[in-house]
Amino acid sequence: MDFTKEAQALQEKMIARRRDFHRHPESAWTEYRTAAFVAQTLTELGYEVACGAQVIAEAAMMGVPEADVLAEHEKRAVAEGADPAWVAKMAGGKTGVVGTMRFAKPGKTVALRFDMDANDVEEAKDEGHRPYKEGFASCHAGVMHACGHDGHTALGLAVAEILAGARDELCGTLKLIFQPAEEGVRGARAMVEAGVVDGVDYFFGLHLGFNANKAGQFACTTDGFLATTKLDARFTGLSSHAGAAPEQGKNALLAAAASSIAVHSISRHGKGASRINVGVLQAGTGRNVLPDRAVVKLETRGATTEINEFMISEVKRMVQASAMLYDVKVETEIMGGAPSCSLDKEMGEKVCELVTATGRFGEVVPLVSLGASEDCAYFMERVQQQGGQAIYSMLGTPIAAGHHNFRFDFDESCLAAGAATSAELAAAFLGA
Amino acid sequence: MDFTKEAQALQEKMIARRRDFHRHPESAWTEYRTAAFVAQTLTELGYEVACGAQVIAEAAMMGVPEADVLAEHEKRAVAEGADPAWVAKMAGGKTGVVGTMRFAKPGKTVALRFDMDANDVEEAKDEGHRPYKEGFASCHAGVMHACGHDGHTALGLAVAEILAGARDELCGTLKLIFQPAEEGVRGARAMVEAGVVDGVDYFFGLHLGFNANKAGQFACTTDGFLATTKLDARFTGLSSHAGAAPEQGKNALLAAAASSIAVHSISRHGKGASRINVGVLQAGTGRNVLPDRAVVKLETRGATTEINEFMISEVKRMVQASAMLYDVKVETEIMGGAPSCSLDKEMGEKVCELVTATGRFGEVVPLVSLGASEDCAYFMERVQQQGGQAIYSMLGTPIAAGHHNFRFDFDESCLAAGAATSAELAAAFLGA
Amino acid sequence: MDFTKEAQALQEKMIARRRDFHRHPESAWTEYRTAAFVAQTLTELGYEVACGAQVIAEAAMMGVPEADVLAEHEKRAVAEGADPAWVAKMAGGKTGVVGTMRFAKPGKTVALRFDMDANDVEEAKDEGHRPYKEGFASCHAGVMHACGHDGHTALGLAVAEILAGARDELCGTLKLIFQPAEEGVRGARAMVEAGVVDGVDYFFGLHLGFNANKAGQFACTTDGFLATTKLDARFTGLSSHAGAAPEQGKNALLAAAASSIAVHSISRHGKGASRINVGVLQAGTGRNVLPDRAVVKLETRGATTEINEFMISEVKRMVQASAMLYDVKVETEIMGGAPSCSLDKEMGEKVCELVTATGRFGEVVPLVSLGASEDCAYFMERVQQQGGQAIYSMLGTPIAAGHHNFRFDFDESCLAAGAATSAELAAAFLGA
Amino acid sequence: MDFTKEAQALQEKMIARRRDFHRHPESAWTEYRTAAFVAQTLTELGYEVACGAQVIAEAAMMGVPEADVLAEHEKRAVAEGADPAWVAKMAGGKTGVVGTMRFAKPGKTVALRFDMDANDVEEAKDEGHRPYKEGFASCHAGVMHACGHDGHTALGLAVAEILAGARDELCGTLKLIFQPAEEGVRGARAMVEAGVVDGVDYFFGLHLGFNANKAGQFACTTDGFLATTKLDARFTGLSSHAGAAPEQGKNALLAAAASSIAVHSISRHGKGASRINVGVLQAGTGRNVLPDRAVVKLETRGATTEINEFMISEVKRMVQASAMLYDVKVETEIMGGAPSCSLDKEMGEKVCELVTATGRFGEVVPLVSLGASEDCAYFMERVQQQGGQAIYSMLGTPIAAGHHNFRFDFDESCLAAGAATSAELAAAFLGA
Repeated sequence: MDFTKEAQALQEKMIARRRDFHRHPESAWTEYRTAAFVAQTLTELGYEVACGAQVIAEAAMMGVPEADVLAEHEKRAVAEGADPAWVAKMAGGKTGVVGTMRFAKPGKTVALRFDMDANDVEEAKDEGHRPYKEGFASCHAGVMHACGHDGHTALGLAVAEILAGARDELCGTLKLIFQPAEEGVRGARAMVEAGVVDGVDYFFGLHLGFNANKAGQFACTTDGFLATTKLDARFTGLSSHAGAAPEQGKNALLAAAASSIAVHSISRHGKGASRINVGVLQAGTGRNVLPDRAVVKLETRGATTEINEFMISEVKRMVQASAMLYDVKVETEIMGGAPSCSLDKEMGEKVCELVTATGRFGEVVPLVSLGASEDCAYFMERVQQQGGQAIYSMLGTPIAAGHHNFRFDFDESCLAAGAATSAELAAAFLGA
Repeated sequence: MDFTKEAQALQEKMIARRRDFHRHPESAWTEYRTAAFVAQTLTELGYEVACGAQVIAEAAMMGVPEADVLAEHEKRAVAEGADPAWVAKMAGGKTGVVGTMRFAKPGKTVALRFDMDANDVEEAKDEGHRPYKEGFASCHAGVMHACGHDGHTALGLAVAEILAGARDELCGTLKLIFQPAEEGVRGARAMVEAGVVDGVDYFFGLHLGFNANKAGQFACTTDGFLATTKLDARFTGLSSHAGAAPEQGKNALLAAAASSIAVHSISRHGKGASRINVGVLQAGTGRNVLPDRAVVKLETRGATTEINEFMISEVKRMVQASAMLYDVKVETEIMGGAPSCSLDKEMGEKVCELVTATGRFGEVVPLVSLGASEDCAYFMERVQQQGGQAIYSMLGTPIAAGHHNFRFDFDESCLAAGAATSAELAAAFLGA
Repeated sequence: MDFTKEAQALQEKMIARRRDFHRHPESAWTEYRTAAFVAQTLTELGYEVACGAQVIAEAAMMGVPEADVLAEHEKRAVAEGADPAWVAKMAGGKTGVVGTMRFAKPGKTVALRFDMDANDVEEAKDEGHRPYKEGFASCHAGVMHACGHDGHTALGLAVAEILAGARDELCGTLKLIFQPAEEGVRGARAMVEAGVVDGVDYFFGLHLGFNANKAGQFACTTDGFLATTKLDARFTGLSSHAGAAPEQGKNALLAAAASSIAVHSISRHGKGASRINVGVLQAGTGRNVLPDRAVVKLETRGATTEINEFMISEVKRMVQASAMLYDVKVETEIMGGAPSCSLDKEMGEKVCELVTATGRFGEVVPLVSLGASEDCAYFMERVQQQGGQAIYSMLGTPIAAGHHNFRFDFDESCLAAGAATSAELAAAFLGA
Repeated sequence: MDFTKEAQALQEKMIARRRDFHRHPESAWTEYRTAAFVAQTLTELGYEVACGAQVIAEAAMMGVPEADVLAEHEKRAVAEGADPAWVAKMAGGKTGVVGTMRFAKPGKTVALRFDMDANDVEEAKDEGHRPYKEGFASCHAGVMHACGHDGHTALGLAVAEILAGARDELCGTLKLIFQPAEEGVRGARAMVEAGVVDGVDYFFGLHLGFNANKAGQFACTTDGFLATTKLDARFTGLSSHAGAAPEQGKNALLAAAASSIAVHSISRHGKGASRINVGVLQAGTGRNVLPDRAVVKLETRGATTEINEFMISEVKRMVQASAMLYDVKVETEIMGGAPSCSLDKEMGEKVCELVTATGRFGEVVPLVSLGASEDCAYFMERVQQQGGQAIYSMLGTPIAAGHHNFRFDFDESCLAAGAATSAELAAAFLGA
């Protein structure tokens, strides 16, 4: 099969889909319209499709919006063309989809993962921003595909189509995983807990756009995944008149402020890099009222899962102690998280050989360092725990602005090369 | 003149006006509709009326809303029936009004002050709340007359009418001051700086509702005014990626948190009571971004102006130092303030005698303690600095809930007794 | 009896004794030499003398030195002339003495209290300091009578001698209480708990030197006693190499620092004055070792016992929470304390009349405000709880420097007037 | 020349000298006795000897004791046998010595550095501690050779003797640098600034005892030097009576506490490891006095000099800001410091070959990581800046307890192998 040719034939379709997703961005756990389209397309291509509670373990979902918000987005998705039957299956934010195809010949089980969610970013609205100029900028206020997941989804569907077309030549079992809620590292754990990578021999993750920001590059493997935990702390005290009876209040603002400073004083770790950030603190209602409510939104990171565990364990104790300091109550909630992970060298080397052999890229980079967090690490960790192998690759493309920037855009011409390569790698690892 | 009878005759008019004001509450510096009505009414009663820049010194206005907010409220006032000519004179939030009447016979200059603004409170909307049940609850979302200033304004206009009717019998000069922006102690300073109490011999302030919350009471004088300053601090740092380059950021959230804790550690004062409250802290935008913006809203108080000066001086230095701690910039703005003040005993004693003699109240209380802040203190301080005398009285009435509570209401039957007494006191102090 | 004449006759003896006490100052709970002399003198004058465990309830002693320190001071006292038999009775720091005399005629029970301890202050050693110049400066390094308790003790013994001499004329029961450990407000509670003021009808406390610092003054009553608690907190963490393994340490220094800042942020109290002071913080051993030890020494105060209770309750919780913040252990110990107290007006008025009638003072002040703490309040509180009355007076004298200053000295000519007045008041209240 | 044999012949002398140094330990900048002995010995061996101001640039000395302390130690050294002439040359703490020998044949310039100072540690005094049992434990209270510098000095003198004996065979110029004040990283900078390694082609540093703590090991090169800065901050406020007039004080304790917490909240650095430790905080004098004095002793570290510069720059600003927070004054003083440094691979490889070839060690380790700070890095950095090469090696030996522990001791049998190897390496690098 000529993967390059097959992918080229799908290029227009990929671009059209990517722009449709871009115009209708959906943030974490509300990807009803996107996921319904994915599910329908995979079904039409002949995949067994699982979605909703089949692929999302509710207890492991993190940072899920309130029920009324979810319900509203379900309605919106239908209003914007989603098939109500698929949406109903995904109710409650269970917007993951897995398409499975079992080929006739025996072989390996190979999984590819694509993420679908958008960012909480207000997209640029000026002629200098191509999506706006060309009419496919976000129609949802405050939400934007600023990390390329629209491209990932379109690319994944093209891979599905290419490999479905080659079904007679292929061996083993193919799993195409479309994940919700990667932003905030909230979604992968729930799919892992639902067992979607159980039994997988080879796992591929992919992201478009990396450091060099140039066309014609492919980075075969990635390391430097920082383990991370996202946590909210909500403090509840007692308000009182700040002039007449300050001693009758219990000050949630001071508890939140003290906790913010304290967690930044957590000791450095002798075994590697750690991070702490209180990104948001909101407290109080009026100047002359002793403040009874405060919320702190923070994250920890670590070069290893162990270091991140140290950080979040310190954070949890400090948050409780800060509440005790000012005699207020506090509730904490884990809003997201990802482990660290390591790539499999052997698999990585084989990928390098194969990608180089395709001649599709001007530059094949063996290894890049992420230096950030990705919940793809949950999939990779589980696959490796079961004796499988996993890597995470990066597809080069010029980008208009950094990831998560309100002017983010990428060169869609990378999609065909990416789809061809993903399909070719999957075919190769499924076995001869 | 029979003040009791005159006031009784105006009772229905007072109640109707109070309810109209209650239904159309206007918060600080946006009292266009109320002030226009006051100006028009005083004019019709024969007072010389000054308003806008004539009675409000712009440089001394504190805590004024943004220009677009003011413009929007000007339009609303006109839409709700305000005379556009008066509104135009008051543009820019200069919603103070002073009505002056010079009587033929020589005498003293007497000033009475009434405040007009409403609170940023969402009014109760249920049958248990009389204003809602009887159809005069606020029609402005998030704003409510929860401190009785609607009653003060109605009462003040009745006093104007009673005294205008007695103009042939009176001596000296009468000034009726209708002040905006008492809430947040923002408005009096600007009227004082505009000179509205220059030359005043006797000054009267009045508030309805006090501790005992019962009918038939009149408290002749009040002490225990806490000096206060309201201050906002806005911190500006530099955001950075909390995972990849935290050292490149400048953390406004930590600066704000540190300042909040620090100001609460200001030393107690050996000479009397002090207060500090950081009522609001808002910082940061996203969990994984080093926060570059923060705002802190606070207030200080002191049993004396000197103690409050100590507190605010400490606050200002600490806010600057907290910014320096995290290498961020900070801007502070005074959003309101009031001095402490003392009552004039001699004038108070005469008032007690006169009020007792009227027989209008079942209980005449010589002195109550406020234990809070009131910017009426600016007027009193200025009058006293010029050799005049000043007191602040309280008019008893049952109230449905505490001042500033969303269920606040009062018994309108207190208005007639209050108007009669205010008019009678004014007449007496204007001189025989 | 001519009290003035009797006291004059004892003036030289008082001065000599005061200088002997001044030269041999003994700090809290180590007043063995002073107390032994008091006990012996009272015995010789015919008083029933109780001391040691008879007048000090061990469980209620606060801030007692370690046993070896006490033992060392017992030896020193004997070496400096104390009777070993008395010292033995007072072993363990129980250095209180009560002399009781029951007169033949029925009457009231009257108690006078004198404190005996010195301060932890290094006395001035130069010719400008009279005690040094005249050869009676402290011979004990780091300890000095800088609060006049040497004078109190000498005065108390003169009162004992005058009243013993008048025993045939007196009624009721006289109790002369010589208290240890007033500094740090550590001693009175233990005497109260031992019952030494049970059954007392009238109680007198006295201090020399007050605001005006001039001769010929007597302040009959005192208010403004601040309730107080003295507390030590000792934090224990875990040291580690600050370069190689900081995460393995538990930081006692940061816990102590956090607690110090937190307690200063305790809310002001709406019902009256409060105070907080962390006077000492010592933490850590070496720059490159994560610090595992820290101690904080603090005190709270309140205008009322209730306010002080609020303060110390906040402190205790905050100290525990600060330890939790950095995962260290903490132990707290109450090192001293005193309640607030109120004077009895009726008794005060009678004292004023009597003192004025003596003509002994150029100025008789009815009331002064202490604005500080005194554990005499424990005696006063207990007497009042039992239906008795209590006051605290001040004896005017010029002083060379403020109380507790290393140059403190007073004009010994005040002693005779003080002794005469105390004796005369006691005689009067014992009853006719 | 048979270096092994030469070194063996000196073994007894080395051990005797090491024990003499161990018995007379001298802490930083007071190594008068040790340095005088070194200077005298080198002179006798035929080296040109420079010491005092010739090899120590006064302006670059860090953490020097007060002049009276230095003077006292000069006297002690003489009393314990030091030649007064040498001591006089080293007055003011300038206790460095450099011995230079220029050989007849042309060659390279090679420098070896040995440190001489002891630690501020009280040595174990029990039979289980060999130096005590065998009679060479420290005779100086609170000071102990707990880091093996006694061994370094003895070893260095043996190297001097071996190479002096081979002078006819050698080329180039040999410099033997005996450095004071390595503990606290205080001394190397002053020797570098005096130019003692200017013109050096090859530089060798050596330390005995490393991770494995076993005999027969030699680690040829070392990396992982953490750059570091040691800083003291002294805060001066104003005391006041904590009960009567707290507002009149300026609280140095709170400033020190706030600075301690703030510096621990300095952001992690994205480019590598950083460290911060406040090791000591001492503040205040008495519980009831508002504290006017505080001192903070801290250190920063960084994986690179740049990261350490970031840390100390943050610290300096935060310390100033903390003083401003509480309106107190602060003075900071740099008490020590060292850069990071990198080893020269080429030189390291040649050393590995040579050491392996000697067959003197059972295990030759190419590289170990220090993970700590050493001011030897100043010498290495300067040599490399001038085009020379530098490495730092480690000599294996069992140790009785960790470095800086009060029970530290090492197996003296390592000294001969160390001296032989150092001499042999020097000879080789001086050139053929």
